[in-house]
Amino acid sequence: MQEKCGVFGIFSEDRVLDVASLSYLALYALQHRGQESCGIAVCNDGLMQYHSDLGLVPDVFSKETLESLGKGNMAVGHVRYAPMDQKNRANTQPLVVRHKKGSMAIAHNGSLTNAYALRERLQNEGTVFHTSNDTEIIINIITKKRINTSSIEEAICEAMKEIEGAYSLVIMSPSKLIAVRDKCGFRPLCMGKIKSHKEGTPSYVFASESCALDSIGAEYVRDIEPGEIVVIDKKGQRSIKTHCGQKSGICVFEYIYFARPDSVIENMSVHEARLNAGAFLAKEHPVDADVVFGVPDSGLDAALGFSRESKIPYGVGFIKNRYIGRTFIQPTQEERDKAVRIKLNTIESTIKDKKVVLIDDSIVRGTTMRRIVRLVRETGAKQVHLRISSPPFINPCYFGTDISSRENLISCKMNTSQICEYLGADSLGFLPLEHVGKIANNAKCGFCDGCFTGKYPIPEPEKITKSKYDYKIGVI
Amino acid sequence: MQEKCGVFGIFSEDRVLDVASLSYLALYALQHRGQESCGIAVCNDGLMQYHSDLGLVPDVFSKETLESLGKGNMAVGHVRYAPMDQKNRANTQPLVVRHKKGSMAIAHNGSLTNAYALRERLQNEGTVFHTSNDTEIIINIITKKRINTSSIEEAICEAMKEIEGAYSLVIMSPSKLIAVRDKCGFRPLCMGKIKSHKEGTPSYVFASESCALDSIGAEYVRDIEPGEIVVIDKKGQRSIKTHCGQKSGICVFEYIYFARPDSVIENMSVHEARLNAGAFLAKEHPVDADVVFGVPDSGLDAALGFSRESKIPYGVGFIKNRYIGRTFIQPTQEERDKAVRIKLNTIESTIKDKKVVLIDDSIVRGTTMRRIVRLVRETGAKQVHLRISSPPFINPCYFGTDISSRENLISCKMNTSQICEYLGADSLGFLPLEHVGKIANNAKCGFCDGCFTGKYPIPEPEKITKSKYDYKIGVI
Amino acid sequence: MQEKCGVFGIFSEDRVLDVASLSYLALYALQHRGQESCGIAVCNDGLMQYHSDLGLVPDVFSKETLESLGKGNMAVGHVRYAPMDQKNRANTQPLVVRHKKGSMAIAHNGSLTNAYALRERLQNEGTVFHTSNDTEIIINIITKKRINTSSIEEAICEAMKEIEGAYSLVIMSPSKLIAVRDKCGFRPLCMGKIKSHKEGTPSYVFASESCALDSIGAEYVRDIEPGEIVVIDKKGQRSIKTHCGQKSGICVFEYIYFARPDSVIENMSVHEARLNAGAFLAKEHPVDADVVFGVPDSGLDAALGFSRESKIPYGVGFIKNRYIGRTFIQPTQEERDKAVRIKLNTIESTIKDKKVVLIDDSIVRGTTMRRIVRLVRETGAKQVHLRISSPPFINPCYFGTDISSRENLISCKMNTSQICEYLGADSLGFLPLEHVGKIANNAKCGFCDGCFTGKYPIPEPEKITKSKYDYKIGVI
Amino acid sequence: MQEKCGVFGIFSEDRVLDVASLSYLALYALQHRGQESCGIAVCNDGLMQYHSDLGLVPDVFSKETLESLGKGNMAVGHVRYAPMDQKNRANTQPLVVRHKKGSMAIAHNGSLTNAYALRERLQNEGTVFHTSNDTEIIINIITKKRINTSSIEEAICEAMKEIEGAYSLVIMSPSKLIAVRDKCGFRPLCMGKIKSHKEGTPSYVFASESCALDSIGAEYVRDIEPGEIVVIDKKGQRSIKTHCGQKSGICVFEYIYFARPDSVIENMSVHEARLNAGAFLAKEHPVDADVVFGVPDSGLDAALGFSRESKIPYGVGFIKNRYIGRTFIQPTQEERDKAVRIKLNTIESTIKDKKVVLIDDSIVRGTTMRRIVRLVRETGAKQVHLRISSPPFINPCYFGTDISSRENLISCKMNTSQICEYLGADSLGFLPLEHVGKIANNAKCGFCDGCFTGKYPIPEPEKITKSKYDYKIGVI
Repeated sequence: MQEKCGVFGIFSEDRVLDVASLSYLALYALQHRGQESCGIAVCNDGLMQYHSDLGLVPDVFSKETLESLGKGNMAVGHVRYAPMDQKNRANTQPLVVRHKKGSMAIAHNGSLTNAYALRERLQNEGTVFHTSNDTEIIINIITKKRINTSSIEEAICEAMKEIEGAYSLVIMSPSKLIAVRDKCGFRPLCMGKIKSHKEGTPSYVFASESCALDSIGAEYVRDIEPGEIVVIDKKGQRSIKTHCGQKSGICVFEYIYFARPDSVIENMSVHEARLNAGAFLAKEHPVDADVVFGVPDSGLDAALGFSRESKIPYGVGFIKNRYIGRTFIQPTQEERDKAVRIKLNTIESTIKDKKVVLIDDSIVRGTTMRRIVRLVRETGAKQVHLRISSPPFINPCYFGTDISSRENLISCKMNTSQICEYLGADSLGFLPLEHVGKIANNAKCGFCDGCFTGKYPIPEPEKITKSKYDYKIGVI
Repeated sequence: MQEKCGVFGIFSEDRVLDVASLSYLALYALQHRGQESCGIAVCNDGLMQYHSDLGLVPDVFSKETLESLGKGNMAVGHVRYAPMDQKNRANTQPLVVRHKKGSMAIAHNGSLTNAYALRERLQNEGTVFHTSNDTEIIINIITKKRINTSSIEEAICEAMKEIEGAYSLVIMSPSKLIAVRDKCGFRPLCMGKIKSHKEGTPSYVFASESCALDSIGAEYVRDIEPGEIVVIDKKGQRSIKTHCGQKSGICVFEYIYFARPDSVIENMSVHEARLNAGAFLAKEHPVDADVVFGVPDSGLDAALGFSRESKIPYGVGFIKNRYIGRTFIQPTQEERDKAVRIKLNTIESTIKDKKVVLIDDSIVRGTTMRRIVRLVRETGAKQVHLRISSPPFINPCYFGTDISSRENLISCKMNTSQICEYLGADSLGFLPLEHVGKIANNAKCGFCDGCFTGKYPIPEPEKITKSKYDYKIGVI
Repeated sequence: MQEKCGVFGIFSEDRVLDVASLSYLALYALQHRGQESCGIAVCNDGLMQYHSDLGLVPDVFSKETLESLGKGNMAVGHVRYAPMDQKNRANTQPLVVRHKKGSMAIAHNGSLTNAYALRERLQNEGTVFHTSNDTEIIINIITKKRINTSSIEEAICEAMKEIEGAYSLVIMSPSKLIAVRDKCGFRPLCMGKIKSHKEGTPSYVFASESCALDSIGAEYVRDIEPGEIVVIDKKGQRSIKTHCGQKSGICVFEYIYFARPDSVIENMSVHEARLNAGAFLAKEHPVDADVVFGVPDSGLDAALGFSRESKIPYGVGFIKNRYIGRTFIQPTQEERDKAVRIKLNTIESTIKDKKVVLIDDSIVRGTTMRRIVRLVRETGAKQVHLRISSPPFINPCYFGTDISSRENLISCKMNTSQICEYLGADSLGFLPLEHVGKIANNAKCGFCDGCFTGKYPIPEPEKITKSKYDYKIGVI
Repeated sequence: MQEKCGVFGIFSEDRVLDVASLSYLALYALQHRGQESCGIAVCNDGLMQYHSDLGLVPDVFSKETLESLGKGNMAVGHVRYAPMDQKNRANTQPLVVRHKKGSMAIAHNGSLTNAYALRERLQNEGTVFHTSNDTEIIINIITKKRINTSSIEEAICEAMKEIEGAYSLVIMSPSKLIAVRDKCGFRPLCMGKIKSHKEGTPSYVFASESCALDSIGAEYVRDIEPGEIVVIDKKGQRSIKTHCGQKSGICVFEYIYFARPDSVIENMSVHEARLNAGAFLAKEHPVDADVVFGVPDSGLDAALGFSRESKIPYGVGFIKNRYIGRTFIQPTQEERDKAVRIKLNTIESTIKDKKVVLIDDSIVRGTTMRRIVRLVRETGAKQVHLRISSPPFINPCYFGTDISSRENLISCKMNTSQICEYLGADSLGFLPLEHVGKIANNAKCGFCDGCFTGKYPIPEPEKITKSKYDYKIGVI
């Protein structure tokens, strides 16, 4: 399971800040949201320079590359996770184009539910597409609206009437930096501020998560509201709320897995949400055990929450090799198998002859978890009680999470006791559905938990065959 | 001075041929037409895979990259020369897009004269541009025409009514490979054939020059006619000549400098044309000398022609370091200076105490030639007589040659005797204007010699300021 | 502070195992012991192939590189930490040479105390040195001994009479794999076994830490004894204990910081030793606080030990960006500053308005810790109580740890309360000297704690000026 | 066939010159002598920095790499050709070591005939070897001699009593730059001078060929004499001629093929020597033909000489793709086949319906020449008369030329008419043996033509099996 992107934008009127370097640092902080590709576009008085490529931020950007982007007063950045079949250079972002009114750069996190219909309509009008990204659909619609509107923000507002689904956008026009969040607010997007060195307007930044603000010394201001358009330009910031006020539904899996624990989303600490999930698990699925520990890194916080609630001592059961990439990133099954053996090792003194509670955030296909349970048993655990800090996945996500098809989801094929047996655990407990919304108890918005419940805040897209979606041009 | 591109395409119905590898070899042979970037797109039953990047063919394509393009039944390839301000990855070709009717790939050599007007019109209709290439204008117009036409070739034929200037195109649709040459035929484009291993249709190839056909073992068939559209598909080849029959004008500088001497263009051997130019020079500007030699590699053939006509012995006066790139490619003045000192060395035994005739193809700014004359004098030449196998450059080219602006052209600022003095030569002779057309005496078409005469086969574009043309988005 | 190396060796008589791939995986597991360079040498019936370079294991070895090492029956591997002034390719290991008796490869962890005298003696005899590594001294002495001895192991045994200091070696001759540990056993070295697929002898492996055995599915057998030579060849394994039985002294900092927590060294779990250190700290320096947390990753285990002993809740105060290298690796001060701001972020919900206990393994210069304390205060901690799981560093290490010179050690310049004030903490406690040896209470050997106590198991090298040591040949 | 190396050295007391950059440019000029690897070592008041790697000069050295070598007062450089089985990084040069008296760097062109015996002796004394280069033997012997001598030049002079065979060396000690040529002078080595910007001593340079002097603006002074040692230091230059005065024998193939035509070796222009060879061919093997042309680039000069003597018009029959490396460099047979088809193309207008004389420098295995003759016939030549500007190869070279073993030499297996038939030519003529020495008629030294005659200036090495020579340690 994987979220698709992280976005960032900065507007620094006084040009004291090095917008390219700050974008670089912010993308570093957002790297967990996408490791396939990244990019930065810098705007210098209307002229945009950009660079993007496949790879991690420190691999794509050298000191020289960063410097060659030049000094500017604005920048947008993007990190991208790509499903295997779209891992190519043409799909990197930000997407930077030229239209009637000048250049535009756009960074997008999310997924449109009416992408197929929109793309078909645009193609019927003679539009060519250079990528298979939804982002290119958005930029075409905005551009067409721009012809008959008096400003870019007005064009965006018009475009929002047509595009449906999940989108957190940062858009850069020659003179404005604009943040946009879809009406439900599926994906997070927040605003920060860096105090000006001289008097006058401060610099503004937008980022998918607050941890990116922290990394560049920006002060958190607020989250962009679902449906809101925030415009920053020379005159300062202003907001367009035409599309606000509908039923909100941030993806609850942002709290469970995607976001960094040090981020605060919609007023709720991600770390606290995970502690809460662990505590709920301890209450709902109590067990007599000697030690509780999490699968690094995604299960660690919930394990601590479980320990605090259950009073079972918290321990360190695994060491994760810090020089290895994350399992989910590695594409082939063979590479995945290999990676698991060298990525995680157990600590015998924590596990041997103990009854252990093992915590992880979710189970997708079950193959990785099965290997992990086996590892723990081989290390000498007397009992292995598995607790999962989310309910079972049984439904597709249409809003930017790359979930395996149902055939691959273990919870679509087995009930809990069957899964427990398959995994080789002594007991298995999932976070009950009714608690999912409660883990982020301070959050000021509603949740989308469609992947667990099958109930989505907006209509599902009509069923469309995969081949219909096939816009692929392969760029190696 | 530099030509902008080389194009290639191959259609191999029976799939016995490895179209990616053959494209690679053909681009190798066309590398002299563009060293900044290159690319290949392969079509496999409608699915297109491509790869392009800045760099020479052997640097951009490794064995792995080439293999990852997959097997296919068609391919197009491109090598590109880029003016300094457009040297970025986004402008690499072939350009591959997706439109209503599927994928399309296009490789383009030339320059449109109404690019500004077309681009403005398209932008007014809401079109976004991802590059600053004319190629993207062409692909948008064809795509729009395609909506109301019944075939891609019909759409191309319609588009040709709107695009003006120089263009030799190879276009790949999901099922067809199409070669197009503008009405004047400014840039060369020829067709070849590779015999099929089994019975049935042979494989067809298109290339900017016949040397590319030779390099892959293809048999030369004929040149594409000015204005012609040649379509290859399962049913074989056919031709659309709606736009044929107008006044033709192939760029005469293809014979003088751009093309490889082993190419035959419009029935005329490039090598022979250069021998002819040298012979004309000997007749028009005779001199009493001991030896004649050329500046490698562009002046060698004309020097041999001069020697044969004048009976002055042919010699080897220079050794060019084979591990150095060409002067014109190196961007900064400092690098250019450095390159000249290490790129060329003189052979003393040829030069010392001799009256020498030195031949080169053209003089642009005069700085390089001045250094070369100095080198020859330092080696001990008694006299240096300079002969240039083209007339003086005094006009801009609108058709794909990157000529310095007039302020930089030495022939716009000085007369021949002043130039001779500036260069430090004992005498200087240019190819007379009236002979330019005669050097390619076998060619079956007219010539464009506008850069020498100021007379162009089609109207010049209205004078437009450079800033108006400024569509740049910088991609580093 | 940084340990210098990790070593690995494998002998697989039946050739069922891919010794190159297993070396690669083992070096991955040992990567924390050295990130500057790495290398693998494979022996195939006496012919050795090797590859080494600057960089991390996954960067230096691609699939192709690994395959090109070929199949073999033995391999040795090495990861290296290099002080700034020796960061060059010539110093990479394993060192592979050819001598009278064939090829030899050697991987070395440690530092000789009589390197200067030995090198001078060898040079006086006409020896040339290609590197500035102690390893090359060792290989020269062994080679000279080999001339008058009947086996490589006898030569090694003779050489051990002359080389003094710390060395854990894995040596590969054309037919034998040999592990050697210096008489004190300063650096760890253990042996493992992989069961044979067919009957007959199992495969043997040597590694700096047991975590490398785990990563390749090898079973831990035992630690090499201080002074022991273990020989593996076709006939199986045998041991030479001529130099065993002296006063042992493993570096206690292996337990405190260098080794991976999942390693077991001399029968003592590294993780447990760190829990113990934390518990001692809690007993010796109790404090009234709301939460205790460690600086990731080196302070986490001790923080858990402190929490368990003190009953103060364990928390997660920091998130470390998993895509950033370790601070100690980054060379310049400027880069270090930059890294700290983006490498670590605080979790507000853990810290704000709390009295916190902050744990780290050591303080060297104090600059990093000062920044960390400031970070915690800025996050809103009411009090910051700092506890360090080692005593103050006040002495040099001569045995392979790269400690700053005394002028840079904060504990050489200030007492505890001065340091506390400098760091901006409310209180500061170090692990008392008398407890250092007790943290690894199960270890079956003595300790070297000279960096804390100034008492070393063997005589210090006579003071020699740095310039005398200057054998540098810079290889960039 | 391939020469093994090019060497360079520079001493610039006043440090006005950038010795690293000048080395880079000189190696560029010598690149034809070795394309496998290259390296530069810079000495700055005794401290040596170096960099070397596999690859061409512009690939191995970037601006940054060059700058990181620092400023210095001396440098040595090397380009290397490597037989396939020694193509590894460890064998790159200059070899830089540290010994009793400080650092030493050495660049070597040639091959020792007593390498095996010397290496065995050194190994018996306990010497370790890091490479399989003869160079390392030389450096070890010099170092051992240095212990009991009062200067490096004295040690070199002593070493020359023991090393036999071909060697042109440039050696750099902390304070001296020394050029050495073996007693026969098998390989060229010349000295140049760059005038000082201030008064005082000029800068001195040594290079394998004079073309390297030209490329850096140095004035040719003289060739190093066979057996001479030239020392440059603060006090100026001086010469040791202890080993001079023996029978000299420069490799005649330097004139025929190895050296650049613009070089002057032992007072003889290489270009002139090739013209002479062509003229001799015309006299010895006259033919009635329409045109004469050479195989680029090695046959061009001789073709011109043939034309001048025979009065048969000189033509251009081939175009060589300037973006392709040389055939001899490409290792596998498959790659060689591929390369030939795309590397060379014929010019039809020169060849068709003509009786042609085709000139090349030599025939080794005959496979390439056979393909070339076929190419010419396919282009329509009526007759193909092949003339070779050297006698048949029938003997091994022990002095640094990599000749195929006799089994591969076509002239060892067939007589001239058989070869002619095999190649598909109408006639074939080699340069007669008796003229070989005459082509370099101005040269001031004797020649080694052992590869043609079997008579060598010094005794052949005793026959040794290849396995005995096998010192290989493979470094990938």
